Amino acid sequence: MAQKGDLMTVRGDIRVLDATIRDGGLVNDFMFTDDFINALYRANVKAGVDIMEFGYKASKEMFDVNKFGKWKFCDEESIRGIVGDNNSDMKISVMADVGRCDYKKDIIPKSESVIDFVRVATYVYQMPAAIEMIEDAKAKGYEVTCNIMAISNAQEGDVSQALEMLGHSSVDGIYIVDSYGSLFPEQMRRLADLYLETGEKYGKFIGVHGHNNQQLAFANTIEAAAQGVSFLDATMMGMGRGCGNCAMELLLSFLKNPKYNVFPVLKFIEEHMLPLRAQGVNWGYDIPYLLTGHLNQHPSAAIEFMKAGRSDYTDFYTDLLDK
Amino acid sequence: MAQKGDLMTVRGDIRVLDATIRDGGLVNDFMFTDDFINALYRANVKAGVDIMEFGYKASKEMFDVNKFGKWKFCDEESIRGIVGDNNSDMKISVMADVGRCDYKKDIIPKSESVIDFVRVATYVYQMPAAIEMIEDAKAKGYEVTCNIMAISNAQEGDVSQALEMLGHSSVDGIYIVDSYGSLFPEQMRRLADLYLETGEKYGKFIGVHGHNNQQLAFANTIEAAAQGVSFLDATMMGMGRGCGNCAMELLLSFLKNPKYNVFPVLKFIEEHMLPLRAQGVNWGYDIPYLLTGHLNQHPSAAIEFMKAGRSDYTDFYTDLLDK
Repeated sequence: MAQKGDLMTVRGDIRVLDATIRDGGLVNDFMFTDDFINALYRANVKAGVDIMEFGYKASKEMFDVNKFGKWKFCDEESIRGIVGDNNSDMKISVMADVGRCDYKKDIIPKSESVIDFVRVATYVYQMPAAIEMIEDAKAKGYEVTCNIMAISNAQEGDVSQALEMLGHSSVDGIYIVDSYGSLFPEQMRRLADLYLETGEKYGKFIGVHGHNNQQLAFANTIEAAAQGVSFLDATMMGMGRGCGNCAMELLLSFLKNPKYNVFPVLKFIEEHMLPLRAQGVNWGYDIPYLLTGHLNQHPSAAIEFMKAGRSDYTDFYTDLLDK
Repeated sequence: MAQKGDLMTVRGDIRVLDATIRDGGLVNDFMFTDDFINALYRANVKAGVDIMEFGYKASKEMFDVNKFGKWKFCDEESIRGIVGDNNSDMKISVMADVGRCDYKKDIIPKSESVIDFVRVATYVYQMPAAIEMIEDAKAKGYEVTCNIMAISNAQEGDVSQALEMLGHSSVDGIYIVDSYGSLFPEQMRRLADLYLETGEKYGKFIGVHGHNNQQLAFANTIEAAAQGVSFLDATMMGMGRGCGNCAMELLLSFLKNPKYNVFPVLKFIEEHMLPLRAQGVNWGYDIPYLLTGHLNQHPSAAIEFMKAGRSDYTDFYTDLLDK
């Protein structure tokens, strides 16, 4: 597919989504202060971010509300406590995992909610369940996306079939998700072409969510964008599970649309992300994450290794090779 | 230009150069212990690295030998103290900066030296002086490259003319150098095509040296490689000036040639790079480097900012915008 963007002009279809709370919450069990979330909301509005994701709609039957911060559950009143009626141009999203939420009950009609987007996260093999959730959320009045996770471990034929199924669903957009941070730009461009083909055929937009295991989250995001992918996930200082995500400060510096402004992002990082780091909340590129990414494995082993304060990389690598 | 590499096969023309001492030395004034350099040499040989750069051939009249480690000067006996006669398949390089070395005196005939490559570093406007140095080193028997620095700040016409001049010289290879870490993959591919055109016309190989200001050093390196660039610079853990370079552990994990082995690199990092970090030697991606990269400026202001222990990113950004 021919490149759609270039380095000098503005693409009106680009949308930036801040996933700091949602993916970053995987680092600190969503234990953010209200002060942090308030400041993040205001920073995102000022920076021209298009969508802010507040967290997950996780099942309270499956997950203990006392063990996680409130953004794992995203009750309507929690979000309204920050945004009121959200009198801004920025939209609000939540993520709902297939098999880990009570969406019929917990996702209320859009007419009663300040949430705009529901992003359904699924593995390829869960596609029928994902589509049921998508149709439920669409019927309730939301804009809905499907985020197919861990595609680097899926069969290409299965991904193609999933895309066809989504093409026939009511979903508004489909995300390329590099859960293991194992994709190279060349593969990302190929996947972008595959997803965009379905997108153009069925009128769905395409998004991208990267991980930084191989220091490629930003590179993969802008390469996907150049192919025509339009919804771009980023997080403040790249905060996210393990090695983290595409950094918002990199993405907003890159985008040429004058609506985007990196200054409020820098201010937020200075005032809120650095203190978080100083408290011992850790994420970002490091050797163990590179190794799981390189081997196309879930980062969980690397996260445990880091939490244990280990640095015996060679032993860790040998163990990974056994898996 | 059509892509030359792919993700499944081996390109026999690829050469990996370890620039840890040379670019990393800019972080700690080349104050490495002999133990560190010895271990690095052995790790590189085991890892299948093709060329190891020992440092600079800097003028002892211009630079005080008491203020820098010996690898800023790379005396023959210093290198031989580590490698003996270098009975390995790995070649040895040094860098010589235009205007900052006494090459006529300090670069001895190849027949008396264990050095294989002399890499001449130059700004575009110094090209006549660079070519004089290139011809001197060639006449002495070395393989010679020209590393044109800071091209993101040069006029494209000047770069094209420099390439033509080098095409007519005896130089063996020409490097794309992203000194400010400001290039995006799309620009890197375009530059690779430009350099490769000259390379193919005049029989010169093309190399790439990235900086990680925008977390793109690795991405730019492999994208350039896919276009046909063959000499790839990397450093252990990405150690290098400011935000550092393309990380060796990323590059060797990526390359498919079974001659490359990331294991000795992991071992070296574990045993020698982590202690260096623990001593307070600092490099790697951080917000101030992103900002100078984004604004296509020399990283010196960011390095000063980091050394001062500052974190007022917004003030720093406002200052940079005034420059």
